[in-house]
Amino acid sequence: MVPAIKNMLPHPFDPLNVEEIRSAITIVKKAHGDVFFNVVSLHEPRKVEMKAWLENPANSPRPSRIADIVVIAHEGKVYDGLVNLVEGKITKWELLDGLQPIVTMEELQAVEVVCRKDPKVIEQCEISGIPKEDMHKVYCDPWTIGYDERHGNKIRLQQALMYYRPNVDDCQYQYPLDFCPIFDSIKQEIIDIDIPEVRRPLSKAQPINYHPAAVEKAGGYRNDLKPINITQPEGVSFKMIGRELEWQNWKFHIGFNYREGIVLNNITYNEKGTVRPIFYRLSLAEMVVPYGNPEHPHQRKHAFDLGEYGAGYMTNSLALGCDCKGSIHYLDAEFPTRAGDVRTIKNAICIHEEDSGILFKHTDFRDDSVIVTRARKLVVQQVFTAANYEYAIQWIFHQDGTIQPEIKLTGVLNTYSMNPDEDTKGWGTQVYPGVNAHNHQHLFCLRIDANVDGPNNTVFMSDAVRSDAPVGSPENYYGNAFYGKRTKLATTGEAATDYDGSTSRTWDICNPNKLHPYSGKPVSYKLVSREVPPLLPKEGSLVWKRAGFARHAVHVTKYSDDQLWPAGRHVPQTSGEPSVGLPEWVGDGTESVDNTDVVLWHTFGVTHLPSPEDFPVMPVEPITLLLRPRNFFTNNPVMDVPPSYCSTPSQVAAKGAGVTDAADKMSKLAFANGCRSAADAKGTNGANGH
Amino acid sequence: MVPAIKNMLPHPFDPLNVEEIRSAITIVKKAHGDVFFNVVSLHEPRKVEMKAWLENPANSPRPSRIADIVVIAHEGKVYDGLVNLVEGKITKWELLDGLQPIVTMEELQAVEVVCRKDPKVIEQCEISGIPKEDMHKVYCDPWTIGYDERHGNKIRLQQALMYYRPNVDDCQYQYPLDFCPIFDSIKQEIIDIDIPEVRRPLSKAQPINYHPAAVEKAGGYRNDLKPINITQPEGVSFKMIGRELEWQNWKFHIGFNYREGIVLNNITYNEKGTVRPIFYRLSLAEMVVPYGNPEHPHQRKHAFDLGEYGAGYMTNSLALGCDCKGSIHYLDAEFPTRAGDVRTIKNAICIHEEDSGILFKHTDFRDDSVIVTRARKLVVQQVFTAANYEYAIQWIFHQDGTIQPEIKLTGVLNTYSMNPDEDTKGWGTQVYPGVNAHNHQHLFCLRIDANVDGPNNTVFMSDAVRSDAPVGSPENYYGNAFYGKRTKLATTGEAATDYDGSTSRTWDICNPNKLHPYSGKPVSYKLVSREVPPLLPKEGSLVWKRAGFARHAVHVTKYSDDQLWPAGRHVPQTSGEPSVGLPEWVGDGTESVDNTDVVLWHTFGVTHLPSPEDFPVMPVEPITLLLRPRNFFTNNPVMDVPPSYCSTPSQVAAKGAGVTDAADKMSKLAFANGCRSAADAKGTNGANGH
Repeated sequence: MVPAIKNMLPHPFDPLNVEEIRSAITIVKKAHGDVFFNVVSLHEPRKVEMKAWLENPANSPRPSRIADIVVIAHEGKVYDGLVNLVEGKITKWELLDGLQPIVTMEELQAVEVVCRKDPKVIEQCEISGIPKEDMHKVYCDPWTIGYDERHGNKIRLQQALMYYRPNVDDCQYQYPLDFCPIFDSIKQEIIDIDIPEVRRPLSKAQPINYHPAAVEKAGGYRNDLKPINITQPEGVSFKMIGRELEWQNWKFHIGFNYREGIVLNNITYNEKGTVRPIFYRLSLAEMVVPYGNPEHPHQRKHAFDLGEYGAGYMTNSLALGCDCKGSIHYLDAEFPTRAGDVRTIKNAICIHEEDSGILFKHTDFRDDSVIVTRARKLVVQQVFTAANYEYAIQWIFHQDGTIQPEIKLTGVLNTYSMNPDEDTKGWGTQVYPGVNAHNHQHLFCLRIDANVDGPNNTVFMSDAVRSDAPVGSPENYYGNAFYGKRTKLATTGEAATDYDGSTSRTWDICNPNKLHPYSGKPVSYKLVSREVPPLLPKEGSLVWKRAGFARHAVHVTKYSDDQLWPAGRHVPQTSGEPSVGLPEWVGDGTESVDNTDVVLWHTFGVTHLPSPEDFPVMPVEPITLLLRPRNFFTNNPVMDVPPSYCSTPSQVAAKGAGVTDAADKMSKLAFANGCRSAADAKGTNGANGH
Repeated sequence: MVPAIKNMLPHPFDPLNVEEIRSAITIVKKAHGDVFFNVVSLHEPRKVEMKAWLENPANSPRPSRIADIVVIAHEGKVYDGLVNLVEGKITKWELLDGLQPIVTMEELQAVEVVCRKDPKVIEQCEISGIPKEDMHKVYCDPWTIGYDERHGNKIRLQQALMYYRPNVDDCQYQYPLDFCPIFDSIKQEIIDIDIPEVRRPLSKAQPINYHPAAVEKAGGYRNDLKPINITQPEGVSFKMIGRELEWQNWKFHIGFNYREGIVLNNITYNEKGTVRPIFYRLSLAEMVVPYGNPEHPHQRKHAFDLGEYGAGYMTNSLALGCDCKGSIHYLDAEFPTRAGDVRTIKNAICIHEEDSGILFKHTDFRDDSVIVTRARKLVVQQVFTAANYEYAIQWIFHQDGTIQPEIKLTGVLNTYSMNPDEDTKGWGTQVYPGVNAHNHQHLFCLRIDANVDGPNNTVFMSDAVRSDAPVGSPENYYGNAFYGKRTKLATTGEAATDYDGSTSRTWDICNPNKLHPYSGKPVSYKLVSREVPPLLPKEGSLVWKRAGFARHAVHVTKYSDDQLWPAGRHVPQTSGEPSVGLPEWVGDGTESVDNTDVVLWHTFGVTHLPSPEDFPVMPVEPITLLLRPRNFFTNNPVMDVPPSYCSTPSQVAAKGAGVTDAADKMSKLAFANGCRSAADAKGTNGANGH
């Protein structure tokens, strides 16, 4: 860290820095002795205060730096607290009952160690065909138990998904074991083991691996990929002041917390000198991954990766030239350790630009006069590892005012054992001999704290529909009439809406107080999202109760400072009775969300029916959506992006005099000698391959 | 052209070359005198012959080179013909009745010239407020008339969409005129003018333009975009022999015709030495752009850009460093001129590779051992200009066996005039004062001639659905059961199916004769398409009748050599009574498409409700879909792509000894001095922007 930073006051949106985390921990320890720190994170400024400061920093009080604390004390007692770091004092300290805080990496790591030594686990391994001297080859992925009605939520539990790895370098998921120990985090012991009625001994299949030694043995790496170099010799086009980024009229603050990972705040776009607010806060706020196998105990597999483990806590340290190419800026992340120290994740966030193809183009067919302008995008990315799976979260900014959250799924399928010739009953796929990959969904909840030209917004649902008038009627004689039907979502109840592919449904976040001068429609940002499966666990099911946010594609609530996480603040072991988080905030559905400070919650994702191509490691599967300005800008906001080439009709008539030719001169013909192909260059006549 | 090429026999899939086009024209002229050539194009080899030759070129007859000919002779008589170029003779010559062939660029160009001189058009311009001495500022976009029941299809007609351009360099679409002349292509005269009841005189709005002089006047170009260079110093990773391309296990032939533009043939993937056929032929076969304003004569605006004008004929000549960056290979296109000469479109197709982010990644949370492998994609692209609009068609090949057709829409909205304060009635949006951009759809028809491990395939519909068993029942106690429901589409009738977003519907092209060794499911390619609006013109409407292919998201037909274009061979001025093309081939719905040579027709696209951001030129709006291998490969087919970085647990334990580190060394930190930001480097403390 350079000295200049040290002397800077943190921006109120900045994550707690190392000194602040240490300071909070010291204060808590002084008051409450040795406790386990599950959370020491920025308690975000209250919006009223923060907006006042953003609007007038010179004359408004700077929002305090407050640490949000969750600890586990003796006998598993859980406390929620707040520490005011400016005043150096604890301002809230509250004992919780029947709530389990987020699981830390250290808690996860502990389970495997205990499992390997537990006699009952060893016994089950032996029954599966693993001799006790091979217990070091037994691994477990520790998940929170989700909710198990037999155990409730007073005891802090994890379930251990068991695997056998013949060699330490092997893919962990190819020899799943059929039993599931239950681990008490406080006692640090196995308290129960779920054993299926039908046993599935260790598979005898040959191993399949993707590490270099295995690939070399299987024939080696392909050697026909030539390098692509991406460079920015004049530097990048974005600027950063602390964690505030400016690029192509955009400006926003990049936060990061243990839970949501990247948080973008105060997103604005400068339209010809007018700074226009768009979103106050944007984040991935929760997710749930329900698995579709109804056999006990697989119903417990429905990970809330953000609320139960934390996209921040699980985030990868990214590497230059691996996770991204080109000219990259990184931001680190700092978190408490469970014992009260600080750990740093270097390069937790990467920021870079990419060429993005054609931005716009038009040719006049009369004379081939043409303009072609290339697009640039900015990517703010993190990658996190949730046990078997990886999620690369990209926040992509486009020059035209579009924001595109994109998630790339990769990593390894969660797997379960199956006997030879066992019927999967359709709940999964045998992706490798003895390996059953269960059907599952990845449902993400995007939290959009809207600020479209100001805080008072209204959400409309927009459906492309046919005119009611029949073919042959005077109003629709040729039958071609269609239009965008807009439905105002005036209350939290009306706003609980589902996706409809048959009307290309979108949702418009409008500022009803400001109409576009030409279209007469309210300025808006449109949510365009096409990967919107419904929650497949049924109404009334365990997942439906716990993941209330996933019941609808869109919910809208009135802004409230502490309503950040739609499955609740403390997610592990919630029963869903009653449902916490978003269903509470929606309430009886009568609250107005019309022309007020609103938050839109959007659940999207994929239903994944696995296939052998996904194993033993999954090629990236992307999911994407758009937040597009509609009736927001006066007109196309990117006309001033310099074109690569532009000739006007008068220039064409003047035989090209005066045309703009700024084409990228680094681009080359693939086959440099001008021949039509590599083969031609070698003089072959190549009628039938080589 | 290098000598080696000259001596090469054309591949049977190759487009006709210059010599072949000339030869065909000479033969026709000799027999039939001076005629206008609308089409001289490859008559593709019959599949039976072609497959025999592909399988055994040494011992099978090489398919003949045959030219498909369409001419317009005296008095507008239309002839379809075939010329066998090897034998040098006409093998078919047929007079057509009531059919109008594709409109050539020359026919389009003619309309404006005639309009400007026509007294009735001049009169209407004067009524609109344009003095007769300004007729050189009057432009028209000539469209085929679509179908107008008052005129039928015996007379060859175009409708002239009229605009006023105050300056030759201005955007053409900002001063639309309210009347619509009808042009007889044979007589070369205006035969009628459609004049609306409510007149809309020329708008008095200030001009808005995107050419350099206008941008400079409005404040100039932004100057904060730093260049991004993309280079391949060791060359590209693909090889070409003639028009056959090989890249990353893929091999296919790149054809091109006047109508569909790019045609990909004989697409195979080499899985560890086994060449596996996937698609025999892949192309965009038709499209329709219906406009939603029911007022006469706007119902005539529903362009079939491929069948009426030709994606090949309208294709752009691409420029290095403008339309694509990096190392590019181009292919030219050759077409007849109407008079019987040959025109060449240089660089009609561009082919290049792009880095494509992470291909797969997995980290073991225990020790941070990790593998990260980057992806590459190959793009085969054309861009065509359909009067106001541009379509960039990309065929993207991924290493993992996925093919991703992607279409980028840009160019300028089709516009119509409106009076100040006129109500658009919801059928359009005022995107600029006096400019009404009507609602419209872009519906594309992808033709998939399937060959998934052989010609005999069956299509299944796949829906992700909940178990029927209620929550609490023994079969679904926790309510989380869900599965992929597969419905066999056994007949052409059953196969006419619609999109269902609520089940994340996909379609699987299966080879039922070959089951995956692990999953037991048939090998397949899955069509994953999420931008699938229904045809909004109503059942029984003019568009519904003419664009039969767009009635359903998917149709499946039994392969037949001449069933290439789903709106029929000759599209202009079809009445839709009866519907030609796909509805004919679907027939009464009883034909079996089970385990036979099938073609899947997929209609997808967007419904576009315009917004001022789209004007005066539209930032690119992409539409994409995937063809994904599912149960096709034995397992993940990209494990042998060299990783950027890989450390195994044993290497981590050995403190990094032996790790694979092939990270791209050209990548750099954005702020080279190691500071956290550009601002830091300058020593500012930057609390509040700059």
